[in-house]
Amino acid sequence: MATEIEQQAMRRALEAARATSRTLPNPRVGCVLLDAGGLELGVGAHEGAGSPHAEVRALEAAHEAGHDVRGATAVVTLEPCDHTGRTGPCTRALLEAGVARVVHGQSDPDPAAAGGAGTLAAHGVDVEGGVLAEEAEALNVEWTHAVVTGRPFVTWKYAATLDGLSAAPDGSSKWITSAEARRDVQRFRAEADAIMAGTGAVLSDDPRLSVRSEDDLPLPYALQPLRVVVGETTIPSYYRVFDRVAPTLLIQSRDPEVVLERLVQDGIRHVWLEGGPRLAGAFWNAGLIDRVIGYIAPAMLGSGRAALEGEATTLADMRPLEITDLTTVGPDIRIVAIPGRAPREEMP
Amino acid sequence: MATEIEQQAMRRALEAARATSRTLPNPRVGCVLLDAGGLELGVGAHEGAGSPHAEVRALEAAHEAGHDVRGATAVVTLEPCDHTGRTGPCTRALLEAGVARVVHGQSDPDPAAAGGAGTLAAHGVDVEGGVLAEEAEALNVEWTHAVVTGRPFVTWKYAATLDGLSAAPDGSSKWITSAEARRDVQRFRAEADAIMAGTGAVLSDDPRLSVRSEDDLPLPYALQPLRVVVGETTIPSYYRVFDRVAPTLLIQSRDPEVVLERLVQDGIRHVWLEGGPRLAGAFWNAGLIDRVIGYIAPAMLGSGRAALEGEATTLADMRPLEITDLTTVGPDIRIVAIPGRAPREEMP
Repeated sequence: MATEIEQQAMRRALEAARATSRTLPNPRVGCVLLDAGGLELGVGAHEGAGSPHAEVRALEAAHEAGHDVRGATAVVTLEPCDHTGRTGPCTRALLEAGVARVVHGQSDPDPAAAGGAGTLAAHGVDVEGGVLAEEAEALNVEWTHAVVTGRPFVTWKYAATLDGLSAAPDGSSKWITSAEARRDVQRFRAEADAIMAGTGAVLSDDPRLSVRSEDDLPLPYALQPLRVVVGETTIPSYYRVFDRVAPTLLIQSRDPEVVLERLVQDGIRHVWLEGGPRLAGAFWNAGLIDRVIGYIAPAMLGSGRAALEGEATTLADMRPLEITDLTTVGPDIRIVAIPGRAPREEMP
Repeated sequence: MATEIEQQAMRRALEAARATSRTLPNPRVGCVLLDAGGLELGVGAHEGAGSPHAEVRALEAAHEAGHDVRGATAVVTLEPCDHTGRTGPCTRALLEAGVARVVHGQSDPDPAAAGGAGTLAAHGVDVEGGVLAEEAEALNVEWTHAVVTGRPFVTWKYAATLDGLSAAPDGSSKWITSAEARRDVQRFRAEADAIMAGTGAVLSDDPRLSVRSEDDLPLPYALQPLRVVVGETTIPSYYRVFDRVAPTLLIQSRDPEVVLERLVQDGIRHVWLEGGPRLAGAFWNAGLIDRVIGYIAPAMLGSGRAALEGEATTLADMRPLEITDLTTVGPDIRIVAIPGRAPREEMP
């Protein structure tokens, strides 16, 4: 059993992990080191691929503060890795530092990196897992999905009027929702490691597909998600998706399986899918949408194009979702939903 | 200025008015009588056409309690009427009772009944209007709209999936939303004095268009709104809209102006419009929808029919609404919106 002091330390480790920017393709991880009396020796969080893991950061912080970490307890949101990637395994760093106890939240779902708890225990470290595991897992929903299934997590974002239309009959679709909603989208985009659209949407709307700050300035290149344009139509090079703000990948297939397989090769864990309805429909029909974020403008259009082109023929083809968040963003409504297992009523 | 005691009495009068069932085609009105010391002598509310007005009810209550009402103050949510309908004018009842002061909320917007404040003042009564007027007007939004514009207030209700579809390609549309949402609709229907649908929706869904209780039993005939079926297609007599539960009116026109003109003749103040998309579109295009209530099911259909068939060709044709209420009803979302005057941003 983790002590109350260790649980409090886990909350601070979670907080440190949450305070990071996007770490993908790596998970968000936080770590707090405690001495035998429960005093905090150091805190660390992983800041992304190529930078030290949270445990190493916390050990460094403790050393810098002049603390002796031998016999300490490491409280870490994710099971320490047992795997040498761009950095050495955290298990070795913890063992070399003389840590006596490890308390972790989520167990490592990555087969390539898992086994850390076993290695530590085999070396005489007292290991306790599953502490605040639900909160720890919530830190890395998309990453966990990607390492467990072997394909990226897909969030589909759409904007529509109250009568469910995403474009007018002439194809015009900017701007259905408000400036506030568009800023909100920027914050979500920044959390994904790829932003995807179909060639049709790119040709009709000329979107930038990059991430911009509150001041509408592009984030630095290194912080931009990969832009992914999907489809076989050629996009002229003067389209904004080819500006120098962010990298762009063209995938000449609309087969969702093919697209995601290609993105896995690039280490993509979380795809933010925007427009158009045909591409969204292909992912929806394939059961490859893991989260839906809809922005609903309080307006009626009366005729136009739906957000999604699917394959339903009768009401029994309707697929349930579960709403996980409902709020207003400026004048608009934001709905977050995940595919649901809630049984619909029988048709009468 | 109304005293604090009078304002408190107005709150009780508002409460008495809110506690009534549908009073349409008449407004909801409540009245509290106070003696010179602020003591409550009687409370009354109008219960609908043919029954006494709130002022008369309050005077009766005071008499029954053995109170002397001469010199009393009448606190009433709506300006006392000066008009002889099925009952005599309230001004005369108040003058005959010897009331010395009248404090009212909303001024009477009905040209046929207005002038009560002037008549009372001309007979030496001290009159104070506009007290908690906003709350008083909120009691009778639909009725006020109807007497001011000369046409019924129209609430359009629709149900749709998250991707904005109200029926599958084969026309099936039951049940998109949950049992909780359908019960919620029943409560709203009971507040309207007409429930309208197009012949297409009636033929495809065979709706009852009547009001049912929580136990799914029909309310008594006298409490049922008028069922209105609009369009030129013949509906066979075995359809449920012709059952004996409620009266049904057929209007052989889909012209919204013609339909509303016909309903005005029947004294209808508040029409609850349900299905189908063509009828809703006709009212929307004519600018004759005064409130929208949308039930959004957390589900995706991917192909099907929109809730509204309108006339937009480009995004500039989009018409803004203002969301006045957003909530969940069971697993579904309920959005209430009114036509808005909020300027949309300029198109870029």
